[in-house]
Amino acid sequence: MLRIITQRTEAEAELRRIRDRTHDELIVHKEATVREVLQAVKRQGDRAVLHYTAEFDQQTLAPEQLRVSGSELDAAYQQVSSDLLAAIRLARSQIEAFHRQRLPKSWVQFQEDEVVLGKRYTPVDRAGLYIPGGRAAYPSTVLMNAVPAQVAGVPRIVMVTPPAPAGVSGDALKHAVPAINPAVLVAAQECGIAEIYRVGGAQAIAALAYGTETIPKVDVITGPGNIYVTLAKKLVYGTVGIDSLAGPSEVLVIADATANPVYVATDLLAQAEHDPMAAAILVTTDGVLAKKVHAEVELQLANHPRRTLTEKAIANYGLIVVVESLQAAAELSNEFAPEHLELEVADPWAMLDQIRHAGAIFLGYSTPEAVGDYLAGPNHTLPTSGAARYASALGVETFMKHSSLIQYSPTALGKVASAIDVLARAEGLPSHADSVRLRTKGNPNPEP
Amino acid sequence: MLRIITQRTEAEAELRRIRDRTHDELIVHKEATVREVLQAVKRQGDRAVLHYTAEFDQQTLAPEQLRVSGSELDAAYQQVSSDLLAAIRLARSQIEAFHRQRLPKSWVQFQEDEVVLGKRYTPVDRAGLYIPGGRAAYPSTVLMNAVPAQVAGVPRIVMVTPPAPAGVSGDALKHAVPAINPAVLVAAQECGIAEIYRVGGAQAIAALAYGTETIPKVDVITGPGNIYVTLAKKLVYGTVGIDSLAGPSEVLVIADATANPVYVATDLLAQAEHDPMAAAILVTTDGVLAKKVHAEVELQLANHPRRTLTEKAIANYGLIVVVESLQAAAELSNEFAPEHLELEVADPWAMLDQIRHAGAIFLGYSTPEAVGDYLAGPNHTLPTSGAARYASALGVETFMKHSSLIQYSPTALGKVASAIDVLARAEGLPSHADSVRLRTKGNPNPEP
Repeated sequence: MLRIITQRTEAEAELRRIRDRTHDELIVHKEATVREVLQAVKRQGDRAVLHYTAEFDQQTLAPEQLRVSGSELDAAYQQVSSDLLAAIRLARSQIEAFHRQRLPKSWVQFQEDEVVLGKRYTPVDRAGLYIPGGRAAYPSTVLMNAVPAQVAGVPRIVMVTPPAPAGVSGDALKHAVPAINPAVLVAAQECGIAEIYRVGGAQAIAALAYGTETIPKVDVITGPGNIYVTLAKKLVYGTVGIDSLAGPSEVLVIADATANPVYVATDLLAQAEHDPMAAAILVTTDGVLAKKVHAEVELQLANHPRRTLTEKAIANYGLIVVVESLQAAAELSNEFAPEHLELEVADPWAMLDQIRHAGAIFLGYSTPEAVGDYLAGPNHTLPTSGAARYASALGVETFMKHSSLIQYSPTALGKVASAIDVLARAEGLPSHADSVRLRTKGNPNPEP
Repeated sequence: MLRIITQRTEAEAELRRIRDRTHDELIVHKEATVREVLQAVKRQGDRAVLHYTAEFDQQTLAPEQLRVSGSELDAAYQQVSSDLLAAIRLARSQIEAFHRQRLPKSWVQFQEDEVVLGKRYTPVDRAGLYIPGGRAAYPSTVLMNAVPAQVAGVPRIVMVTPPAPAGVSGDALKHAVPAINPAVLVAAQECGIAEIYRVGGAQAIAALAYGTETIPKVDVITGPGNIYVTLAKKLVYGTVGIDSLAGPSEVLVIADATANPVYVATDLLAQAEHDPMAAAILVTTDGVLAKKVHAEVELQLANHPRRTLTEKAIANYGLIVVVESLQAAAELSNEFAPEHLELEVADPWAMLDQIRHAGAIFLGYSTPEAVGDYLAGPNHTLPTSGAARYASALGVETFMKHSSLIQYSPTALGKVASAIDVLARAEGLPSHADSVRLRTKGNPNPEP
């Protein structure tokens, strides 16, 4: 079921198909729905948010039920085991340490030529984090979005997450209001976030982009979601900033004969179990390893708790490619530009120079992707579907921006006046030229 | 004609209208055209590119005329004065110095706990620069896009720029092929770019995003353009990276009673002369200055070589606001989040802490925006239409990305194994748990 390919051209074609698996024509049709939702929320605010929550999530909410209450936030701590709380806290502190380390610093440089140049970094005023619900309600997603925003110094961070569809949450009956996954609520509070809204889908993105009576307009929206959420993020980009257009997750493992087939097989399944659209690829120099991994995947799949979904991913977007050299493996990997790249080879550091595009690189036999998914520190929000060719992990920069600083003294301006004059005239912009000429002409000291 | 407003609420409403001037409904209609162009170029390559060049630019080209020839590149140097060449070289070297200064550096950290973490920065493989033609054919645009790409180390940088519409270029008759502005060609060559295609509009963006027989597919597209270019960039975002969605240019000047009204007026006109949609705003604490600037703008407009266009911008998107304090001026400026902010006040550095959002800040009486437009060093490609709330100048980062690096030793993995296990089980991801458990359980040294 997990195919093995040994022919290079066939492998390249298959890798292209898998990489581009989300570039389908369906999107154009869904876009019309998303556009309608965006327009309605922009015009009608809460009313439209509640309407689409009823329509898409089968939840009838009153406006005052949109915000998660203080008592629900408190109660979440009672529903989470002490082990889980400790794990969340460990992960949070390691993620914070990594992100804090390279926080961009403002700088100003006073040059001898009386020119001052600099860059001043500031956080955005408001950030909105989208946290998926249902099958993918993950506390780790909260940490990976909230910690960088917090480290960036964003004064107001709000979170949106969809209510569980009717009947899914056991708590729905008890509370009347559909409950949010308590681990998600605890993770948020551990990051200092208490402003959480019970809304998902395109309507949640619209609310964050335009603001409603209840939900504030933000400056940046981050976080993964389904195709409707991703389309909505693309459409509101420009009105607000966004982190990226996240597609389904993927791993590419490069392994040589020294790799352990059981580890490799488990890592492939750890990716496939996310989503029927997830991609799990092994590129190996060893035909024997290929067969062993193939067998081990079959074996583990037989009793896998998420078998149906995982099997679907493996069948459609799983692949083993046997190549003649690690050089060839690196070439195929660069063409694919994987979100996650594992180097399970004898000397992973020696391969690094050949790797041009990958969201995160896991080196050696003892670094399964799960380490990075949860708590190594680097962000697990990474470019997918080939976007690693030009994009990077979410980070504190996602929640910051900088202003260039420029100051010229009268003397400094005098020295560049004629060059600016020539350029402005060449571009046909007379007032640009005047703005310098009037300050310097016959007036060596153009202070007022 | 340049209105003076003294009432705060009215000023806020006017500033919102000006800031959001491009968020109009027209866009949806133009999008259908752009979508059609993108699809056609994706499917038919050069044929579609040439078709739309004939339709929109009234230029009938053969495929082999798309690329600017070596002899045209050489000839451009003959058409540019030595003064202009020297100015281009000065600007290029100052822009390079600024961008090189903070080139992101890869780093790896070997921790005592046998964990290795790092970030590895690499350039994109290919960048495509869009350089507008016609009224806005600016060598400075070439420098501001090409230098960061070059400093980032991008191996292949290509440029696209529209052919002048038939009859506009005097050279069209001589050459049969419509000529490109020679200063643009010289600026490109000074940055080491010799791969230049004679194509503009949405068809140029499509060609760079998807590739054609003649024009290579790139990883990142940067550069300003008209509404069709901007819409095309938004639609191809996700297939490739883009710098930003640039709108018309804008300046906000904060001035107190010490400012020189002639300088302020000229700076407002230097912005307005770009485009009928450009915005030029003065916020001042001094009612007398407001009147003087108003009069000076009228005076300079009377004989302005680009009077019609500039007057239009001033009438529709020009504004003087009189406020009671510099604090109030900073608040209005933050709400507007200007692309360019000039602080023509007695102590500009004292105001900085109050400024939260601005693309570039020009401090003091002797720093007209033109200094930054041409040669101070910082990039002149800046967020517009309020995007400075979340976005920053184009930079070397636009052409680079990073991979996170993670390596755990068997011992290090053992230490976090139980925390990962708890988190993976809480998220319902059994193979995530297995990928760590199998490496550590009953096996303190999980090397194969």
